[in-house]
Amino acid sequence: MQTLLLNPSDVRENARMPEVIAAVEEAFAAYQRGDTQMPAKSYIDLPAYNGDFRSMPAYMNAGTWDAAGIKWVNVHTDNVERYDLPTVLGTMIYSDPRNAFPLAIMDGTTLTRLRTGAAAAVATEHLAVPDARSLGIVGAGVQSYTQLDGIASVRDIKEVVVADVRDEAVQRFVDRYEDEFDVRGGTIREAASCDVLSTVTPVEEPIVPRDALGDHTHINAMGADAPGKHEHGDETLLDATVVIDDYDQCTHSGEINVPWGEGMLSDADIYGELGAIIAGEKPGREPGDGITLFDSTGLAIQDVATAHVVYEHADENDNGYPFELVDTEVR
Amino acid sequence: MQTLLLNPSDVRENARMPEVIAAVEEAFAAYQRGDTQMPAKSYIDLPAYNGDFRSMPAYMNAGTWDAAGIKWVNVHTDNVERYDLPTVLGTMIYSDPRNAFPLAIMDGTTLTRLRTGAAAAVATEHLAVPDARSLGIVGAGVQSYTQLDGIASVRDIKEVVVADVRDEAVQRFVDRYEDEFDVRGGTIREAASCDVLSTVTPVEEPIVPRDALGDHTHINAMGADAPGKHEHGDETLLDATVVIDDYDQCTHSGEINVPWGEGMLSDADIYGELGAIIAGEKPGREPGDGITLFDSTGLAIQDVATAHVVYEHADENDNGYPFELVDTEVR
Repeated sequence: MQTLLLNPSDVRENARMPEVIAAVEEAFAAYQRGDTQMPAKSYIDLPAYNGDFRSMPAYMNAGTWDAAGIKWVNVHTDNVERYDLPTVLGTMIYSDPRNAFPLAIMDGTTLTRLRTGAAAAVATEHLAVPDARSLGIVGAGVQSYTQLDGIASVRDIKEVVVADVRDEAVQRFVDRYEDEFDVRGGTIREAASCDVLSTVTPVEEPIVPRDALGDHTHINAMGADAPGKHEHGDETLLDATVVIDDYDQCTHSGEINVPWGEGMLSDADIYGELGAIIAGEKPGREPGDGITLFDSTGLAIQDVATAHVVYEHADENDNGYPFELVDTEVR
Repeated sequence: MQTLLLNPSDVRENARMPEVIAAVEEAFAAYQRGDTQMPAKSYIDLPAYNGDFRSMPAYMNAGTWDAAGIKWVNVHTDNVERYDLPTVLGTMIYSDPRNAFPLAIMDGTTLTRLRTGAAAAVATEHLAVPDARSLGIVGAGVQSYTQLDGIASVRDIKEVVVADVRDEAVQRFVDRYEDEFDVRGGTIREAASCDVLSTVTPVEEPIVPRDALGDHTHINAMGADAPGKHEHGDETLLDATVVIDDYDQCTHSGEINVPWGEGMLSDADIYGELGAIIAGEKPGREPGDGITLFDSTGLAIQDVATAHVVYEHADENDNGYPFELVDTEVR
């Protein structure tokens, strides 16, 4: 038996965004039903290298399909400067839950970007106004592209405003999408006034002013992924309907971690988990609602769900490189 | 940058046993010094498939080298019968601790067998009589081969007795080694009377009688890896100098877990951890000592240490298949 090796292009080509969004939505629903297993992320801290490793194993059962695997990922903040490598690199092992055979090894970096865009899309589907036409993006880095790819799959986005202090990053983003959208660089305030806003920055001090937001702006707060990080101020969090992906992860390292830790925000200020809305246990956006905010920390089941889509298509398309990775001889 | 893919043959060819033993010994020493990071194994239990997945991440710093990685491994007890696959399959991601680049993906099944044989060899080096010539092996399965390979690297083994209820497994073992050793099938009692005894079975009831052991037999108890499993009776454990690889793992799922859980064996009956002996904090075997027993559960740092040896040689020998696994573009 052979394991399929899938490089960044293979992952991109086989991760059709509408299917990834559907699979990630099924993952959140399975989580709500209790049909997942997701041990807490475990960390290896390497202060000598200014970095860490994280292991994210998961299993999910969507009913008609199930999937298992592990993503091994890191954050090494000196990587760009010292090694000309991205800060975050990931490798995904996608396994058959029935017998644990490693069906595929795939680029977990591309996978992470895809599943993060898909999570924003799922939240946008349930929380943005139905006729949203404009999308603001703050932060034009590696994660910004799949925000547009994902959100444009669930709303008829016409206009995109992207804000970043790095002009060349804004230009790269505009060049990539100018044939498909009315896309331009702009200020944070301009981005914040759109129907949908995705923030994808690593800042530790809020950068989006409350008064710049539109009356019904839905915010995807994607950036915060460690204690001490947040992109939005207390006023925004107190005014918004706050939806989280996971209570433990969000209070530990998500957008809400700083005000929640300081007592500025309490459990009563959290509307609920995205899975509860998908499952129909709580309503999503209703007419007349104001601003909404999705706090995304990223769950291991999103990776497994996305890997499922990638593997199924790669297998049927004969993509990837089959390799005799493990010894399957039974003695 | 490319990731090196190493299949079972690549792993075997580049894992020179004396070097693997030295690296595993350094891993135990680093553990004793506190120069390792090894989060607890995390489990995903899949009762519907009669199986589980385990993630084993680790970092170790040996002083002159350091290494990081994760082994994703399973136990699916129906695999042989239902899928013609081994019960245990493993995949190892070996990463550069400085920047997290995945240097290699390698067969973790072969790796597990090698590092387990190496652990038995390290224990045998410190606990068996110096002039040990005979080795008994109970259980002629996939783990038995590296027991002989490892132990014969640290003692001048001449005679080998292998016991298993499966005649064909015994014959396969004898065929493999008859050119190098005086090797024959025998009873458990015959195996137990040797200078060194390795037990590598999954039994839940002890199968080695106390009175069959030699006066100074050193036992490598390798089989127990889950609560409820043990290969040796209380009498043996109470009489022997008991050395463990890790307190938490051994009391949870090692050879001592059953009597320790029942209160038959107490902490006072445990001589110490193998790392303390390697570090010189406690003496190993001394003249006049009786039976000794090493309780091996298998530590993630053993996998990382073995992967280090494999990768270094594979890289210098241009073995393996280089693959563009992860997206290293910095945007």
